[in-house]
Amino acid sequence: MPDPSDATVHPVCGPETVLELAARVREPNAAVPGAVRDHLDRLTKPRGSLGRLETVAVRLARILGDPPRPLQNRTVFVLAGDHGVAARGVSAYPSEVTVQMCSNLGSGGAAVCVLARETRCDVVVADLGVNRSGPVAAGVLDLRVRAGTRDLADGPAMTTGEAATAVMRGASLIRARDPLPDVICLGEMGIGNSTSAAALTALLVECPVDEAVGPGTGVSGRGLEAKRAAVRAAMERVVTMDSGAAATASSGARSPSGRPYALEALRQVGGLEIAGLVGLTLEAASRGIPIVVDGFIATAAALTAARLAPPATAFMFAAHQSPEPGHRHLLKALCLEPLLDLGLRLGEGTGAVLALPLLDAAGAVLRHMATFESAGISGPVT
Amino acid sequence: MPDPSDATVHPVCGPETVLELAARVREPNAAVPGAVRDHLDRLTKPRGSLGRLETVAVRLARILGDPPRPLQNRTVFVLAGDHGVAARGVSAYPSEVTVQMCSNLGSGGAAVCVLARETRCDVVVADLGVNRSGPVAAGVLDLRVRAGTRDLADGPAMTTGEAATAVMRGASLIRARDPLPDVICLGEMGIGNSTSAAALTALLVECPVDEAVGPGTGVSGRGLEAKRAAVRAAMERVVTMDSGAAATASSGARSPSGRPYALEALRQVGGLEIAGLVGLTLEAASRGIPIVVDGFIATAAALTAARLAPPATAFMFAAHQSPEPGHRHLLKALCLEPLLDLGLRLGEGTGAVLALPLLDAAGAVLRHMATFESAGISGPVT
Repeated sequence: MPDPSDATVHPVCGPETVLELAARVREPNAAVPGAVRDHLDRLTKPRGSLGRLETVAVRLARILGDPPRPLQNRTVFVLAGDHGVAARGVSAYPSEVTVQMCSNLGSGGAAVCVLARETRCDVVVADLGVNRSGPVAAGVLDLRVRAGTRDLADGPAMTTGEAATAVMRGASLIRARDPLPDVICLGEMGIGNSTSAAALTALLVECPVDEAVGPGTGVSGRGLEAKRAAVRAAMERVVTMDSGAAATASSGARSPSGRPYALEALRQVGGLEIAGLVGLTLEAASRGIPIVVDGFIATAAALTAARLAPPATAFMFAAHQSPEPGHRHLLKALCLEPLLDLGLRLGEGTGAVLALPLLDAAGAVLRHMATFESAGISGPVT
Repeated sequence: MPDPSDATVHPVCGPETVLELAARVREPNAAVPGAVRDHLDRLTKPRGSLGRLETVAVRLARILGDPPRPLQNRTVFVLAGDHGVAARGVSAYPSEVTVQMCSNLGSGGAAVCVLARETRCDVVVADLGVNRSGPVAAGVLDLRVRAGTRDLADGPAMTTGEAATAVMRGASLIRARDPLPDVICLGEMGIGNSTSAAALTALLVECPVDEAVGPGTGVSGRGLEAKRAAVRAAMERVVTMDSGAAATASSGARSPSGRPYALEALRQVGGLEIAGLVGLTLEAASRGIPIVVDGFIATAAALTAARLAPPATAFMFAAHQSPEPGHRHLLKALCLEPLLDLGLRLGEGTGAVLALPLLDAAGAVLRHMATFESAGISGPVT
């Protein structure tokens, strides 16, 4: 558990602790799912014929009411951070790409910037922990907690205080938006962060390491083996610790199986940008804002948030199915079905902004479609 | 083969025959696929990481050039028609729903109208063959060839002249748009038309009747059995005719297997709205306009068009995977992979308009993303 005082070292974060933030998340109840389903069945279409769009409509109405208001203000948050584990050659790209891509994100040349413009979504880029010597890139918010995490294969990636600070800085990004977004998208960028997400997956859903680790941005051969080895080392380090001693020492930071609870798992193997996404998720859910989760790394953050605040799941929409093997495990643990399956493996929130039109469509169905009665149309024969 | 003079009975169609229209379709060559793939690989993203969006980008560039222009003018054509076979109870809805839904489509209350507004797509509704006693509904173009087809289980659904006229009237819808659309979506509505599409599927892809027939808008039990029986009767009627005699009589309207070629299959078991979509597809392809194909019925029309003009396939984008079993067979025959898989089974072009933002996104990637070189970003280590 974090020492509450950790979260207060940076004035921007305010005095709230992560667990207090999590406790503010409540189940949405702006509409009753059964009533929304009845509404959908009165519309001029065969029952259920809009498929998964109807599921989205019910979820949206539960958060925003039936009919839900249009999603006018939409923001994708792209959080960036570096990872100590990258030094082990776990990525197809060198570490300096993180800082280079920050410039590209800040200046609008990155994929998510281009796709977000198409779906009328604002882009907010924030540095939560990039390993840079110079100033933050133009167009990027400086919320850096430290210059990258420590190597998760060797020891905890972050201190409890660093993890908590990153979570609260992520949360602060929502509070800083005026007006508040009607919907947010979770995005990330950071060389090495699929290794961190894989370790988080193995810890949180308790799946075998080989089912948690995949090629990420395209690593194979020796790099992929290094990635598996790093995650295995992290698991051995974190799970095989004397769980009895650990439970005493960290006052309840571990489950009875000896696996660490969410916040402890996050600090052990997570990333600063992933921690920031956890905060974004908790703050958005606590304010009743729908959350579009991107691919593998964003979903690892979403599951961490859901473990801290189970009602947060009801605010989430899984944008797409990533080819990363661990992503299925994460989605299953969250009981989320992805909307798109396009083989996307870019991150940055690209899949999330691509899914926004489907949320728009689902809301519009509830707002504008005629009913059988209003249109004077005969119902089914049977 | 149609008698060319058939197509001239309605002045709106002009003197061109269906086969002359089909002959105007040429392979697109506005960009070379390999060069577009090279362009994609220079953009600031791991190679291939935008998945199927990259396939869409290549196809779009081949039609419109690299980079493709934005898809400014977009039109979904919703063609309506009735089916004689509906009298056999093959649908969950009574026949009069076709004319009722025309009013709903014309006045903007139908699903496709609502979804098209969200994706900035114009809606053009046309009556190609609705069984109505009154005037055409407000907001609906009257291109009616006859008041519904004949029962396909009993005899040919249309005469050769009727089918050709419906094809040419569909084609005329494109010519009437000023400016020409940058992209079109195929939509349809007509009680009984999934029975017609199933028969067309069984004839064109030569799959078993049980793999071509599905629940459509939601028929089951006795209705589903009636639907299978109707398609089986049509197959027996059309395929088991003495093929030698038929080939002589209709001067080459049949393949050596005794199955009719596309235009003959269309007149035997198709629908007037399906024939209209064939014309739309041929005309759009001949003018270099990308075509977003909707679900089962629209895809049956697309395959018919592709059999008449094989290069037309290169202009098509499969919007979504329908749960109808025959849809997979049709997509496979067209070598198209669907973009969405949301369990949509409504028709009207709903899936096609929902897929438009993915085409927009693919085009925007080619137009706006930075390259590794322009952004000064390191490439992969290996």
